[in-house]
Amino acid sequence: MKSSIPAATVARLPIYLRCLGDLAADQSTCSSEELGAIAGVNSAQVRKDVSFLGSQGVRGVGYKVAELRRELRSALGLTKGYAVAIAGIGNLGRALSNYGGFAGWGFDVVALFDSDPAKVGSKVGGQRVESVEHLERIVKERGVSIGIVATPADAAQSVVDQFTGAGLRSILNFAPTVLQVPETVAVRRVDLSTELQILSFYLKDSGE
Amino acid sequence: MKSSIPAATVARLPIYLRCLGDLAADQSTCSSEELGAIAGVNSAQVRKDVSFLGSQGVRGVGYKVAELRRELRSALGLTKGYAVAIAGIGNLGRALSNYGGFAGWGFDVVALFDSDPAKVGSKVGGQRVESVEHLERIVKERGVSIGIVATPADAAQSVVDQFTGAGLRSILNFAPTVLQVPETVAVRRVDLSTELQILSFYLKDSGE
Repeated sequence: MKSSIPAATVARLPIYLRCLGDLAADQSTCSSEELGAIAGVNSAQVRKDVSFLGSQGVRGVGYKVAELRRELRSALGLTKGYAVAIAGIGNLGRALSNYGGFAGWGFDVVALFDSDPAKVGSKVGGQRVESVEHLERIVKERGVSIGIVATPADAAQSVVDQFTGAGLRSILNFAPTVLQVPETVAVRRVDLSTELQILSFYLKDSGE
Repeated sequence: MKSSIPAATVARLPIYLRCLGDLAADQSTCSSEELGAIAGVNSAQVRKDVSFLGSQGVRGVGYKVAELRRELRSALGLTKGYAVAIAGIGNLGRALSNYGGFAGWGFDVVALFDSDPAKVGSKVGGQRVESVEHLERIVKERGVSIGIVATPADAAQSVVDQFTGAGLRSILNFAPTVLQVPETVAVRRVDLSTELQILSFYLKDSGE
């Protein structure tokens, strides 16, 4: 995936956006030091990252919160909505289907898929579960842009092949496996044990 | 949390470890370029991060995979096991309870808590769900080190207060809210919409 903004900066933009959203409603400016402190990034990095958005803070004042939020949303493409499909409606898929956090950012879950005939036809979060056999057709019909893989590891590649076969170019993978995708497809992998390992580091470091 | 390794480096160590685990079983060395490419980090950053472990690659050869994995596990404290408790046994808590990825890294889920009397006493992933009323006592008794918060946003702070009241100093927060904790407590927040926002950036960037 080519972009003029470095991948590491892109990965921090949603964090800045979230941190700005956590500020008190009446706070109108925010320094790079303050934003860095709540985002866990040093202030020089914050300034460098924000400079990619074309924005500069004012010395001694900082960034205008409303303006910076607008620029972040625009850079992230959050000003338009994206249709999302979830494959694998086990506990995790079910949790994701019901996750209220997506809609607020313009992500609309428009399709749920599972291979288990016992699940197909049931409703989860107001949405009917459909057979993976119809995945390609439905993804095309409903203009899905992002596919979420919440299947077991051994089913993930087959689902991804169907997603990419339908022309989809963004995959969020929760299955604990590495996916093979064409170069034009962006994959983000969420590995829940990564977060526990980071906490483990700090436990070790504190001598616990 | 004080540490001689920068927080941004700590956050990348589990990613390196995962990437090394994804290499073919017979690959004995790995260059910083190769590791960087699969981890999505530039090679200079890889070398800098790895240097904090005290390790140096060999020019033209790279790192010894087995040795680097051992150093990463040791730095992350993964050589000892940690007891984990999960509070909030909705769909997400249930998915986490059944998540096979934890045990392989030495994380042992030893307690599940919920406030709903209808859930207390039921079994999830072979573990009995217990009332949050007994959280502090049970966390102390079982030597829990890491608390996972999978409750709705409005219940999260109360659960965290009980976790920290029991002396716990590492929290993994899935609830979409900012938690107030003493300075001695490390909190990692997992926000699933962050990943979708990163994918959104690349969709926007590719003109979709």
